Amino acid sequence: MDVPVRAASNTNWNAKKGILEMGDSVGTRQLFNLGQARKFMQTLLHSKSVDELLDADKTLSLRGMFYKSLHTIEGTKEKTFDDQTESDGILEDLEVSLGSLREELHIFAKKRGTMVGNITVIDNGDEINCRKMGSGGYAIPSICEPDVIQFKNVDAKFILHVEKDTVWQRFNEDRFWEKHNCILTEGSGQPPRGVRRMLHRLNKELKLPVYCLLDCDPWGHYIYSVIKQGSISLAFESSRLAIPDAKFMGIRAIDYERCDLSDDVKISLNERDTARAKQIAAYPWFEKDKQWQREIKKMLSNGFKMEVESLITKDISYVTEEYVPARLKAKDWLG
Amino acid sequence: MDVPVRAASNTNWNAKKGILEMGDSVGTRQLFNLGQARKFMQTLLHSKSVDELLDADKTLSLRGMFYKSLHTIEGTKEKTFDDQTESDGILEDLEVSLGSLREELHIFAKKRGTMVGNITVIDNGDEINCRKMGSGGYAIPSICEPDVIQFKNVDAKFILHVEKDTVWQRFNEDRFWEKHNCILTEGSGQPPRGVRRMLHRLNKELKLPVYCLLDCDPWGHYIYSVIKQGSISLAFESSRLAIPDAKFMGIRAIDYERCDLSDDVKISLNERDTARAKQIAAYPWFEKDKQWQREIKKMLSNGFKMEVESLITKDISYVTEEYVPARLKAKDWLG
Repeated sequence: MDVPVRAASNTNWNAKKGILEMGDSVGTRQLFNLGQARKFMQTLLHSKSVDELLDADKTLSLRGMFYKSLHTIEGTKEKTFDDQTESDGILEDLEVSLGSLREELHIFAKKRGTMVGNITVIDNGDEINCRKMGSGGYAIPSICEPDVIQFKNVDAKFILHVEKDTVWQRFNEDRFWEKHNCILTEGSGQPPRGVRRMLHRLNKELKLPVYCLLDCDPWGHYIYSVIKQGSISLAFESSRLAIPDAKFMGIRAIDYERCDLSDDVKISLNERDTARAKQIAAYPWFEKDKQWQREIKKMLSNGFKMEVESLITKDISYVTEEYVPARLKAKDWLG
Repeated sequence: MDVPVRAASNTNWNAKKGILEMGDSVGTRQLFNLGQARKFMQTLLHSKSVDELLDADKTLSLRGMFYKSLHTIEGTKEKTFDDQTESDGILEDLEVSLGSLREELHIFAKKRGTMVGNITVIDNGDEINCRKMGSGGYAIPSICEPDVIQFKNVDAKFILHVEKDTVWQRFNEDRFWEKHNCILTEGSGQPPRGVRRMLHRLNKELKLPVYCLLDCDPWGHYIYSVIKQGSISLAFESSRLAIPDAKFMGIRAIDYERCDLSDDVKISLNERDTARAKQIAAYPWFEKDKQWQREIKKMLSNGFKMEVESLITKDISYVTEEYVPARLKAKDWLG
């Protein structure tokens, strides 16, 4: 059995496509090899489970897959999997070997994130008008593949993706998506795969630009990086999850002066923040980008981070009525 | 200014009502007292902010409230709040002083949790038919007060609340709510206040019984305890959040034998689990309940915990097609 190698050593930055890609290295997994027999057996076990899922048209969580294939091998005390981590690794092997997204194999991870805006989503046959989703919103599913999710009546001209559900609520309450004709999403921090796949499809299929409103700190920059280029551990999925033309709208390091904020919003960078910022600045897609180099340098010389919520010190609705509209009008963002 | 005391010493178990209640102790907060002036000022600051929120008909997160009232006092280097924890405490003081839920003051915490089922919810004027919410579901808002959320076309006969979104997805995919005419909710672990308030209102206003499907471990038992009786830190809100007649449907410690599960599903109890289980067994509402004493004792003598997902070792849909239907039919639950 041949399994592509999932490791930083086999991950390449494709500057032209603007995404992280997996290289060509392949490992062999043999049945008659004492060091590989266990993984061989685990791969077959999970393949069988996936086959059953597809046949039954059912889906299962990563934890569920672990339990489904878990048993003690007859006549021994050996369990098929020691823990879920072992099981998750084999499932990633299956994804890359088959060239399929986990979701196409009917396996899903935790769900998070919500959506409202000028679009109708068909989800499993149900028509969900995202213009009529009240204060709660439509919960973005973990599996957003085309056989489950289709789009209809799309009026929106762009997507505003915000980091936190609490900020999203401000935008929804001020009906930003209606006034500015857009779709409003949030991923409760690092967006889960369902949200990334939804954004990717909205961007690719409907040509909607994606603007991200995240904190001015290394974590916010990292979230942007993953949305845009993909993560190293999931490089094999970048082409179906990454959004190379996503924009970073803010919070910007210059906003302290530009928005005339008070000292109170400053949150000092600690050593870990500084180290992380330098790591991120060295990512190939940031390394060659002068604007991003300037942005991270400015944050470091400021010596402090700022959250999106810091704009509340100006006015509750400053972010929805002034900040984002001004950035949109001036086409002022990092690429 | 008089502020009721929020502390375990001022928390009483009302056995008749079946909820935790706040006692009568009141503390005084004076302006002309060096030890109290800071808190006095903070209380007034937040009162003013709440007043502005209500006037503008806007809502704000706990973090947002911190930023809104954050500034450096003129002529000094003194900040109005050192951190959000200080701000959150004052907001809880305001809640108890005014006898209002935080949500009534237009302040909200993080949002989590989703819902589908045989009910239509009016959310901020939008009609949300929870029978037509696809695979994603309706995201339960952080504020579920009657002025925002109303109920309509309720066919459901009960509520099934599950601990995890991944388990919820299994129930939704198998259309359990349709087959068994119910509402299906999840709270992604310990349910946030929005979910608890929603469940409370569905239970109280529509007389729908609430059945909880949680893990067989101290964490699952604690989640049930909070849903049922409220938490000590928020005892003053129990009457509007707690659901004294909520039932615990499983997973039960006897399920290992009853469902003929394999050894593989056993997760050993560690020392912390054992200590926590004994603490929970001593809660006044569990202490006098023979069934619960037996349940916790059985778990301790088993020496292991079990997750809801352990039922997947029987069959993917065992939980939706066999386990819960059997419990419902036999009215087999802990009260």
